[in-house]
Parts: sequence; structure tokens; C-alpha cells
Amino acid sequence: MPAPPVDPDGPARARDSFARQSFLRLLGADITDIAPGRCEITMPVRPDLCQHHGFVHAGVTTTLADTAGGFAAQTLMPPGSSVLTVELKINLIAPARGERLIARAQVERAGRSLTVVRAEVLALADGRETAIALMQGTMMSMSGVAQTPAGA
Amino acid sequence: MPAPPVDPDGPARARDSFARQSFLRLLGADITDIAPGRCEITMPVRPDLCQHHGFVHAGVTTTLADTAGGFAAQTLMPPGSSVLTVELKINLIAPARGERLIARAQVERAGRSLTVVRAEVLALADGRETAIALMQGTMMSMSGVAQTPAGA
Amino acid sequence: MPAPPVDPDGPARARDSFARQSFLRLLGADITDIAPGRCEITMPVRPDLCQHHGFVHAGVTTTLADTAGGFAAQTLMPPGSSVLTVELKINLIAPARGERLIARAQVERAGRSLTVVRAEVLALADGRETAIALMQGTMMSMSGVAQTPAGA
Amino acid sequence: MPAPPVDPDGPARARDSFARQSFLRLLGADITDIAPGRCEITMPVRPDLCQHHGFVHAGVTTTLADTAGGFAAQTLMPPGSSVLTVELKINLIAPARGERLIARAQVERAGRSLTVVRAEVLALADGRETAIALMQGTMMSMSGVAQTPAGA
Repeated sequence: MPAPPVDPDGPARARDSFARQSFLRLLGADITDIAPGRCEITMPVRPDLCQHHGFVHAGVTTTLADTAGGFAAQTLMPPGSSVLTVELKINLIAPARGERLIARAQVERAGRSLTVVRAEVLALADGRETAIALMQGTMMSMSGVAQTPAGA
Repeated sequence: MPAPPVDPDGPARARDSFARQSFLRLLGADITDIAPGRCEITMPVRPDLCQHHGFVHAGVTTTLADTAGGFAAQTLMPPGSSVLTVELKINLIAPARGERLIARAQVERAGRSLTVVRAEVLALADGRETAIALMQGTMMSMSGVAQTPAGA
Repeated sequence: MPAPPVDPDGPARARDSFARQSFLRLLGADITDIAPGRCEITMPVRPDLCQHHGFVHAGVTTTLADTAGGFAAQTLMPPGSSVLTVELKINLIAPARGERLIARAQVERAGRSLTVVRAEVLALADGRETAIALMQGTMMSMSGVAQTPAGA
Repeated sequence: MPAPPVDPDGPARARDSFARQSFLRLLGADITDIAPGRCEITMPVRPDLCQHHGFVHAGVTTTLADTAGGFAAQTLMPPGSSVLTVELKINLIAPARGERLIARAQVERAGRSLTVVRAEVLALADGRETAIALMQGTMMSMSGVAQTPAGA
């Protein structure tokens, strides 16, 4: 499974797919950095994103890691394709609290159909970053699957 | 690590913790069944919970599986404790679309501090259930950690 | 991704691949049951398969779960294909000790190229079965990859 | 969960536990580097450690990653404790072939009872290292559990 040649428009296509994700808009998350093989997503913490101890819900943290991982993978996928999560595993290693969560993902192995990614999620509190989660997962390249309109 | 005796109030305590999860209210999810060792969470599908193909976002599906798993685990935890996700792994096996998602979790191994759970997430479309995700994870019992006010 | 029609020779092809696995011979493991969509592998416990507490090594337990999962998947794969593990996750839930370990796997979702499996590993001690591990993973169908000679 | 102070004898205790693992002797693996928070295990490839394509079995690769991860974790655990694998997830990203496999693990988060580790497994062929697997898992500190005699 040799890796495909890198499409220089990969990051732009990933941003385009991101703009079609209604759920990331609901969370208030945005792509704050993207380049071939990596993606960073940042989300301000809000009180309506929490679990029963007042920490950000593990599901939100996982969403950020998954999305950063998916779009890091998509930057290396061929034109005309879009990305789908096959599976992921996440360890929650510290309480998710602070002003902002930042998920940083990078591609570990880009194959023809499957791409393996790793991500770290950090919480920013009082100017200090703390690692709160580690993710490892598998993304798949799909071609010929229609995407929703941007901003829909 | 022998399992602790079952607290008959476990399901009620899990419902109480659930009511303190602002993020599950944002998603519009609710506990639709809970008993010692298992929990079911149901969520109507909404257009603002989707990814770029118009399917429900993997992060939402994971949130439902995680929450059902966490509260299934909490039903068997001792009085005064609350539940925290240590880690989870999820396989997304079919597109998440339909009218409703239903996450059903059960405890596979209840230990003194760690509990292993499995969950399945189903999509209900036109009266037909399709399995869309399988989760396996580890939950931890915490004592002495304050919870947020209900409905906060 | 509709599932392919079941090849009635699937279990026989899985047994054939198993006979080519030198490592499973080293462990002394054997297929004790196989049918479309499921596989059982049994291994007598030996003192040279242990970790530092005298329990069977987690790596051995994982090998059994992986192999049962892989061959459960292969039973549903098309003629001419062989199976490769993409990824797996395992929770070790009780010490692995006794006379025999038994791994039972079943297919949860068979796709065109990827198959999702779950397995449970049991320890048999004094006629009593105890669940010691739970696995969930992804297998891939490969075609055109040469296999080693049987018994090599 | 603040991390415990580092015990300077941690690496020596990990080497001592390793010497009690009969299964790692069967595989012919050895610790080739160990320091607080990390561990490297090296294993010459042998024909009796393979699966049906003639690659090293995923179970062997997982054993090396698990063992490196476990002993990386143990280097930071308090005196008198030993390590147990709670769970792990591994992605197999390239065929395992060559002269030697090398697993390198490091601690990502050392807690009071649980430690999160990541590992990479490399294959060395003709003087070139190729990454063949990525692992992420959780290790637990056990105290008061007897270990087997060294070399038993």
C-alpha cells in the first residue's frame, strides 16, 4: 500500500469539508492550523458542553480529536475523496477544564484506502496547556460520496 | 478484585448524574432504560449534529456510547461515587442516519475501581434498527468528587 | 458496503490459513470450532507462556483473540483472499490462569474490504470458565498475497 | 492524581520483572534500553513466530509493544509494586518482516494507579527501520502480588 502523492489542495479540501460539519459549528470549534498530514482544531469551553463534574464531556473531547484526525488524514487523500472515521481509541488522562480545548492530530501512516492518525487534546487554562486526552484511530478515504452544502 | 455488592439505588444515582450533564441536554438525549449493569440512551437526530456527508457526527455517536457505558457502570458503583471515563474504543460500522439513535450499554466486568463496558449504537429509520457502532471501554469509580447542580 | 455472499468453503480456507501459522503451533493452539462468522481457538496453558506473576502473558491472550477474530472474519471473505489484522483493542479483565485458554470470536459486521469482529477469551480452571479478556478489532481481506506452505 | 516521585531503582525493578517473564524468553526478546519513563525491547525474527503470509504474527508484535509499554510504566511505579496490563489498542501499519523487531515505549501519563503509555514497533531489515505498529494502552500498578522466580 504505497502512499499516494500529496495533493497540494488537500488542506483546502479539508477546510471545505469542515465547513460542512454542522456539529462542529454547534460546538463552536474551528480549524486553527492545517497542513499536509496535520490538523489543529480549537474550541472555546462553554458551560453547555459538560458532564456531571463540570468538566467538558468526554464526547466533546473525542469529537475534537476525531475531527482533527479525520482532516489531518484528508489533507493527504486524493482529489475527489472525502474522509470517514473507521474506528478510534481515546484515553482521557486529565480533567477537561479551562478556557479552550485544542486538538492536534498528525498522520502516522497514509495508505491507499486507510490512514492511521494520532491526536492529542490539550486544555488551555490561565495560559498553561495540559494534555487531557490521547487518541489513535483509522480513517478511510471515500470517493463519490456527496457532501452536504457548506454552512447547511 | 471482587465485584462490590449491588446498590439498589445505583440506577437512581446514575439518572441523577445524567441530569447534571449539560452536553447531553444540548444533544437532546435522554435515558430511556436503566437497570443494574445496563443503560440505554436515546437521541432524536437533528440537522445540527452532522458531519460533512450529512450523517450524524462520529463524535455524537461516541458521546451516546460513552454516556450509556458510563451510566451502566455507575449503576453498580458504591453509594457516594460517581463515574469517569478512563478510555474507550469505538468502531463505526454503518452511516448514522435515521430518526433516532439508541445506545445500549452493559457492564462486562465490574471491579473495585475499574469497570469494563460494551455498547452498541443503533439507528432507527422507518421503524428498522441498524447497528451503526460498537464500543468497548473502561470506566472508573470516583468518590468525593463534587458534581454540578442538576440542570445547571 | 453490502456484505458479500457467504462462500461455503470459507471455514475450510480459514483452517488452511491457520495451518500455515508457525506461531500458533509454537503456542500449541488449535481451532476447536469454526463456522461462517465465528471461530474458536483453544490452547493448553504452559509454564513458558507466562509473565512475571505466573499468569499467561497478555501477548498470548491477545494472540488467541486476534487469531480467532481473524479467522472468524476469513470465513466470510471471498475465495482467493486471506486475512490481515488492521487493528485491535483488548481489555484484560481477570488473571489468565488455569489449564486451558479458549478464544471465541464472531463477526459483527462484514464489509467488502473491512470486517469488524469481537472476541472473548476464557480461562478453564477446574472445569469452570472465567472470562479473562474482551477484544474488538478490524480485519482486512487481502487478495493476491501468497501464503506460506502449510506446516512450514 | 499527582504522579508519584520517581524511584531511581525503577528501571532495575523493571529488568527484574522482565527476567521473570518466561514467554519473552520463548520469543527470544530482551530489554535493550530502559530509563525512567521509557523501555525498548528487541527481538530477532524467527520462522516460528509467523502468520500465514510469513510475516511476524500480530500477536508477537503486540506482545513486544505491550511488554515495552508495561516496563516503561513500571520504571515510574513505587517500590514494591509490579505492573499489569489493563488494556491496549494496536494498529498494524506495515508487514512485520526483517531481521529484528524493536518496540519502543514511553509513558504519556503516570498516575497513582493507572499509567498511559504509547509504543511504536519497528522492523529492521537491511539496516533500515520501518514502523510496523503503533500501540496505546493503560497499565496498572499492583502492590503485594507475588512474582514468579527469575528464570522460572
